[in-house]
Amino acid sequence: MPTTLVPLMLGVSYSKTSNMRLYDFLPSGNSYKVRLLLHQLGIPYERVPVNILKRETYAPEFLAKNPNGRIPLLELDDGRFLAESNAILWYLAEPSRLLPTEPFQRALVLQWMFFEQYSHEPYIATARYWISILGKKQEYAQALTEKKEPGYHALGVMESHLEKNEYFVGGRYTIADIALYAYTHVAHEGEFDLSRYPAIQAWLRRVEDQPGYIPMTRET
Amino acid sequence: MPTTLVPLMLGVSYSKTSNMRLYDFLPSGNSYKVRLLLHQLGIPYERVPVNILKRETYAPEFLAKNPNGRIPLLELDDGRFLAESNAILWYLAEPSRLLPTEPFQRALVLQWMFFEQYSHEPYIATARYWISILGKKQEYAQALTEKKEPGYHALGVMESHLEKNEYFVGGRYTIADIALYAYTHVAHEGEFDLSRYPAIQAWLRRVEDQPGYIPMTRET
Repeated sequence: MPTTLVPLMLGVSYSKTSNMRLYDFLPSGNSYKVRLLLHQLGIPYERVPVNILKRETYAPEFLAKNPNGRIPLLELDDGRFLAESNAILWYLAEPSRLLPTEPFQRALVLQWMFFEQYSHEPYIATARYWISILGKKQEYAQALTEKKEPGYHALGVMESHLEKNEYFVGGRYTIADIALYAYTHVAHEGEFDLSRYPAIQAWLRRVEDQPGYIPMTRET
Repeated sequence: MPTTLVPLMLGVSYSKTSNMRLYDFLPSGNSYKVRLLLHQLGIPYERVPVNILKRETYAPEFLAKNPNGRIPLLELDDGRFLAESNAILWYLAEPSRLLPTEPFQRALVLQWMFFEQYSHEPYIATARYWISILGKKQEYAQALTEKKEPGYHALGVMESHLEKNEYFVGGRYTIADIALYAYTHVAHEGEFDLSRYPAIQAWLRRVEDQPGYIPMTRET
């Protein structure tokens, strides 16, 4: 564990650090959330690449691990599995400073993480997936048009919050910021224009200044 | 607080019971989740109906409360707001037997709640909304067709889990069951056929047998 990252961990026992495996796909923002957190917490893990473009998450051996056929998927050293990126963030961050201890702040972290999965990711991440991962901008032209209004609505909600707050919850960097950073910082790859959102841009830089930050394309 | 519901609460202080307001829309499954939990925990609250069909969530006075323009929205007695149905469930259930205390089980509760919002609700709830709430089955015919495969995939994931488990997490009724029950038990209103899912049907009956259960159309 790098010395600079130790202060992030609280003084509690942490038995999840050995032999964890992360099944992920490098360009996936949902996977990146988990890699970023693992790196910031200094937790070693084995990365198992799964190519979603080859539908490897729907192979029988993967479905036996996650019947929903999605990455990221965390495998603990005892063989138990945990799916859903934001649930994984919560589990890993629980004994760290990246998840508040006060009950209402914890609920707000969840509020923003559910906002991310319901009101943000299906528009901003999906547009990026069609344009920059699949390279099928023309084929999805009509569907992409329909992603614009709700995607910009989500960005507007973030902008108005960040005009008054440095981070999403409790005035400091938490897993809510990690969850929202993952697809927001690559929104341009889905042709969302962030130039109209100065508060979001300033917040992206604050996230990138956090100890242990790694870019999306770095494996560990 | 009805005597029969007291055993659900753990012996911890619970300061969220006074003067809470729930902004909701009666036919909304997301709103129903919160009403069901509040009733099962015996927590009094004031219900503030918001008609989403009249776009009341996009009125300036509502956006001042929740900039994302969605119900349900919980207002605490000190005027703070909490959005996102599953974040509200978590906050309210925290000191009760409906949220496990073991860290991995808690993460699994979140896993199923994120599954509900990402892989289940956008298909099964949206089909119901178009067909049975808006009454626009013909207008949305093509879009409804596209909801079928992912919606049945979600039901398949639930069925395979419930073939081996009585509830979603830890062998007992939790807020993960509440989150998934809300739209599953009215899936037929979106023309999803549950007759192929006997384990889901048996689980629906187990949920309905829980102390303090109320149907969706009951206000409190």
